[in-house]
Amino acid sequence: MSKSYRVAILGATGAVGTELLELLASRKFPLADLKLLASPRSAGRTMQFGEEHLPVEPVGELSFDNVDIVLASAGGSTSKLWAPKAVEAGAVVVDNSSAFRMEPQVPLVVPEVNPEAAADHRGIIANPNCTTILMSVAVWPLHRVQPVKRMVAATYQSASGAGARAMEEVKEQAKAILAGETPQKEIFPYPLAFNLFPHNSKLNKLGYCEEEMKMVNETRKIFGSPEMRITATCVRVPVLRAHSEAINLEFDRPFSVEKARDILSQAPGVRLVEDWQANYFPMPIEASGKDEVLVGRIREDISNPGGLEFWLSGDQIRKGAALNAVQIAELLVAKNWVRKAAAAVSV
Amino acid sequence: MSKSYRVAILGATGAVGTELLELLASRKFPLADLKLLASPRSAGRTMQFGEEHLPVEPVGELSFDNVDIVLASAGGSTSKLWAPKAVEAGAVVVDNSSAFRMEPQVPLVVPEVNPEAAADHRGIIANPNCTTILMSVAVWPLHRVQPVKRMVAATYQSASGAGARAMEEVKEQAKAILAGETPQKEIFPYPLAFNLFPHNSKLNKLGYCEEEMKMVNETRKIFGSPEMRITATCVRVPVLRAHSEAINLEFDRPFSVEKARDILSQAPGVRLVEDWQANYFPMPIEASGKDEVLVGRIREDISNPGGLEFWLSGDQIRKGAALNAVQIAELLVAKNWVRKAAAAVSV
Repeated sequence: MSKSYRVAILGATGAVGTELLELLASRKFPLADLKLLASPRSAGRTMQFGEEHLPVEPVGELSFDNVDIVLASAGGSTSKLWAPKAVEAGAVVVDNSSAFRMEPQVPLVVPEVNPEAAADHRGIIANPNCTTILMSVAVWPLHRVQPVKRMVAATYQSASGAGARAMEEVKEQAKAILAGETPQKEIFPYPLAFNLFPHNSKLNKLGYCEEEMKMVNETRKIFGSPEMRITATCVRVPVLRAHSEAINLEFDRPFSVEKARDILSQAPGVRLVEDWQANYFPMPIEASGKDEVLVGRIREDISNPGGLEFWLSGDQIRKGAALNAVQIAELLVAKNWVRKAAAAVSV
Repeated sequence: MSKSYRVAILGATGAVGTELLELLASRKFPLADLKLLASPRSAGRTMQFGEEHLPVEPVGELSFDNVDIVLASAGGSTSKLWAPKAVEAGAVVVDNSSAFRMEPQVPLVVPEVNPEAAADHRGIIANPNCTTILMSVAVWPLHRVQPVKRMVAATYQSASGAGARAMEEVKEQAKAILAGETPQKEIFPYPLAFNLFPHNSKLNKLGYCEEEMKMVNETRKIFGSPEMRITATCVRVPVLRAHSEAINLEFDRPFSVEKARDILSQAPGVRLVEDWQANYFPMPIEASGKDEVLVGRIREDISNPGGLEFWLSGDQIRKGAALNAVQIAELLVAKNWVRKAAAAVSV
């Protein structure tokens, strides 16, 4: 006799929502019921789940009655509005937005890094920022062996980070440019096809954008290292899906390349991709659709012997968002951490 | 009465050669004669120079007779073969290839940084690597005020770095992908359209590729700072023209952002591009075709207070190659450093 759970996806029709649906089916999540919720604008259509076609319902006051787990991926303001109501109705919410990530009582969880943090949830568990998740999966196995003193990251972020429509926008822009026409823009402030620009999230007084500060603050919280020194330059690139990152790490004492390679070759959620003869390393087209973060080019930093540099590519929608959320839900199930108040249905 | 010079372009038909031609015309270089040289395969055609159409001649043993200045941009092996012959014939060679850059007796010159080095030439002056030139123009004005102790760079390099055909390849690949077809590759080892990968130059035993080691070694030579600590991650991105770079600088003592901005706003060859309200910073599409290196997002490194981070985009073919070479030639003319043995023609 195994338990199964009543799950709702809030924001089912978006890029991450679509992926959540696929993952719940392919990973055989123990479902008693699956409810698809979206804004009234997106509701009314049906979406495929395995062999079934499920209706997308408009989210409302009664949506979370008889729901055990909510996977929310509809943006910060939607989560702020509906997550507390879902918790009140007895559900646990795994939230993809940035709304609750830095609240002290909300666990911020990457299952390969800090699964135990999920135990203390009070109804909401936050899924970290995509860029942070991908980096955390690769840096944590090193950090737990020898603490990282300082990290300098530069990112190469795909259009998918801004949603499904952003991916279409880049394709349309590329078509226009190849036809000798002027590219149109709607989602991004500047043309992205055959171009790139610093991440267009809001800048703080120090000149860091939100995306960069997420890498700084969320990593510190996930790692439980509030003093960790981190800086990042986040950049949008004309790639459709999967982010890449150049990571430079400083340690208190030298970290050998061999040891790092050995650790990362066995690290959960990491796939080592290195063929030095063929100059073959992680690439976004190969990371797309994959569960693992591809890691390679692990080398000693010649400007700081004993420091390390490496390169990664990871699917932003999958491990960077939907997969991490489903893994959190699986963790809750495995550890019996789905909220006691929620009625788990025995089948 | 002003002198004018007999100039030959070796590798006239390539992406950089074409730009050299345009620059000699637009900058009104004091020409007594202009000879276009290329491999026998590319010879025979004509190229436009201002109002004229000039024939492209096959390079040969007699090509450098009666030539004062050779601008060579035909690759390392061609330069190794022909540059010594040109010098023997009495010309000074400004060489775009990597063949002679690290030879102790060959000056490696960025006119905004170390013009005086050109005085000591013995017939060959090397033009640095494109990525190095763009970075040097922006970092030098800071370094000369307060020495950079360590630099961590991540690059975003366009297809143009691999020549005119590479730019076409990326466009063809994008067309194929948009049509649902499999992209073909010839110049690059992997598809570059909607993708990216670590720079595909040869890797050394430490795992650094040639492009990265050029940034390390050439910068040290240009800056006259053989001990400067530099590391770089070089990455090819699906941009047609102009490279971008994320630069992290450490100094011996704190360097204020205000001072850095003030210095860079007046630095030769630099254009400050920063609109913090509009999230508007250097972009490759705006750097393309421009002489200046666009610099922006100058900010304090929050992981290392007193350190600096900034972002740049610069035209790899123009300032990264052709313009820098023409500026060296202009410097030789202005300082009367064109080799004495070469007969300068009075007009």
